[in-house]
Amino acid sequence: MTDAINGYACAAPGAALAPFQFARRHPRVDDVVIEIQYCGVCHSDLHQAHNDWGNTRYPVVPGHEIIGRVINVGASVSRFRTGDIVGVGCLVDSCGDCPPCCEGEEQYCLNRPTPTYNGVDRHDGSTTYGGYSERIVVAEKFVLRIPDRLDLKAAAPLLCAGITSYSPLRHWNVGRGQRVAVVGLGGLGHMGLKFAKALGAEVTLITRSAGKEQEARRLGADDVLVSSDPAQIGPAAGRFDLILDTIPTPHDLNPYLSTLRLNGTLVLVGLIGPIAPPVHSGLLVTARRSVAGSAIGGVEQMQEMLDFCAAHDINCDVEMIRMQDINRAYERLLKSDVRYRFVIDMGSLKARVPAE
Amino acid sequence: MTDAINGYACAAPGAALAPFQFARRHPRVDDVVIEIQYCGVCHSDLHQAHNDWGNTRYPVVPGHEIIGRVINVGASVSRFRTGDIVGVGCLVDSCGDCPPCCEGEEQYCLNRPTPTYNGVDRHDGSTTYGGYSERIVVAEKFVLRIPDRLDLKAAAPLLCAGITSYSPLRHWNVGRGQRVAVVGLGGLGHMGLKFAKALGAEVTLITRSAGKEQEARRLGADDVLVSSDPAQIGPAAGRFDLILDTIPTPHDLNPYLSTLRLNGTLVLVGLIGPIAPPVHSGLLVTARRSVAGSAIGGVEQMQEMLDFCAAHDINCDVEMIRMQDINRAYERLLKSDVRYRFVIDMGSLKARVPAE
Ligand SMILES: [Zn+2]
Ligand SMILES: [Zn+2]
Ligand SMILES: [Zn+2]
Ligand SMILES: [Zn+2]
Repeated sequence: MTDAINGYACAAPGAALAPFQFARRHPRVDDVVIEIQYCGVCHSDLHQAHNDWGNTRYPVVPGHEIIGRVINVGASVSRFRTGDIVGVGCLVDSCGDCPPCCEGEEQYCLNRPTPTYNGVDRHDGSTTYGGYSERIVVAEKFVLRIPDRLDLKAAAPLLCAGITSYSPLRHWNVGRGQRVAVVGLGGLGHMGLKFAKALGAEVTLITRSAGKEQEARRLGADDVLVSSDPAQIGPAAGRFDLILDTIPTPHDLNPYLSTLRLNGTLVLVGLIGPIAPPVHSGLLVTARRSVAGSAIGGVEQMQEMLDFCAAHDINCDVEMIRMQDINRAYERLLKSDVRYRFVIDMGSLKARVPAE
Repeated sequence: MTDAINGYACAAPGAALAPFQFARRHPRVDDVVIEIQYCGVCHSDLHQAHNDWGNTRYPVVPGHEIIGRVINVGASVSRFRTGDIVGVGCLVDSCGDCPPCCEGEEQYCLNRPTPTYNGVDRHDGSTTYGGYSERIVVAEKFVLRIPDRLDLKAAAPLLCAGITSYSPLRHWNVGRGQRVAVVGLGGLGHMGLKFAKALGAEVTLITRSAGKEQEARRLGADDVLVSSDPAQIGPAAGRFDLILDTIPTPHDLNPYLSTLRLNGTLVLVGLIGPIAPPVHSGLLVTARRSVAGSAIGGVEQMQEMLDFCAAHDINCDVEMIRMQDINRAYERLLKSDVRYRFVIDMGSLKARVPAE
């Protein structure tokens, strides 16, 4: 099992992703060995490959929306066996001991959870490598069961884009009788529309550009507001209980905040950076509004989300690519030219076709 | 009752406050006529006199921390009678019809609540004049009962500074087992310490300058953190459930946000302006933190707060002044040179002593 396996890595800032051979550890007693079938392409993959956050450990093998088949399990593994279809998301470990870990919020582990790639294994100090590869070895606790009803290709992005949208909707108790707005229509936003609708809320897409009405309604929106049009945003003052803001670049929150009702919350799930231009505190004070942030979700909630998707026939809208097409996909991702998530068919890795 | 009464007004931007005669309305059936005994001096009074918010209607008679004695009541008034000691805060009316009004949150009235001064009466369109005057006429619904046990002088600032600190502590369910930090030690901050302590929380003062330890402990703080000292702020990471931020000028929230634990909230009660320098969204996302705002409190909650103060022997720390000293008091207020609130003894108005 420490035999060299094939993957794709980025070797240096600015380098294209290219074939890379590396070793996976022998399974520990609590490990599950997974043959990867599909892996979603997340914005984080691109940022990490480009060292946009200044912390990339090269070579980096991205990928944290992983679907695959169990091919081996450690001696103490009880929840999975060979042949099971499973998923792995953004995390593969956490301290297990701190208050957030004890409350099932491993994503907020006070001792830094271990990311699926570009992390450091808590036991042997090795660098973690992600899902752009043939196989992965993950502790049972961080492995998810994929319900039979889900289309496996479309399920891959649930493991990051899906849970990132689902978790805040659940945390802020979205349900029937509530009005939810989703800002931005990308990987996160299109899942936000589907989840909010399935949870029973009245759902509005807020978008900066017109022309997305039909598409938004197809995805579950009851209404669409174009934020650049004051004639649409003005009358929406005080309307929403929760705004799920999925925009990943700095943007003005003030027009959105005005559409929150008393005690409403705008939750940032896409932006990692300064909130600029500045929020005017008057918009918070005059209706006890909040600006919050939320990150992915805990293991238990991820399983809940997967089961919810199976029960409500929800999946991601994906465009399939081959592993060899990844650099082209990154270029298109930078232009938001994808509806709504690229998923790599990992079978392509074995096919050894040349890159485009 | 429409006889001219004496007060102090500011006649134009930049003008000193000076004696001013004006009329109060005849009491309507639901009105209470109050002879004013004490009136607290709020930062808003100064801002409104200076037209800092660009909406001042001159001449303006400030004052919205009013304590007095009932001297007449309208025919339908049932809760008060002549001789009762009562209070009036920042609001004298609201629409009474919108969802916030129906939930007892008149301060968030969707049709703009009527401020005690510089507002427009909903019935006759007249300008409202505040507590820097002999008498005021206020609808019964917005009149508070002042419990016997309270020292009337010290109770006046409860009606704005007090409720502004109390309301968010109650909204975010502060109580035993929680850790609360108060940022800033002024009129709002010193009440925040007293309330948070009386509600059972472990209370920390966060201050930008050292040397306030003894004073903070006297007011109820269990601990003091100097925010300019990284050796103090660093180890406090993830410590507080709620931060009550009372600073009225733009300031960096990021060091404070880092001291919030998972799901913690920083609530702004002093600042009306841009939140600058910008908040880094990573501080929100990585522990599902929130930045919120809160404004005064509803009538019902104000009564609750006054009763709470009586039950827990809480009052404001005040410095008494004469009406004639108001311009000097404003100068000192601008330098935060008061512990912790000026209160005008309105008896001084009758004494007709010359200004200093
Ligand atoms: Zn991701
Ligand atoms: Zn932990
Ligand atoms: Zn005030
Ligand atoms: Zn109202």
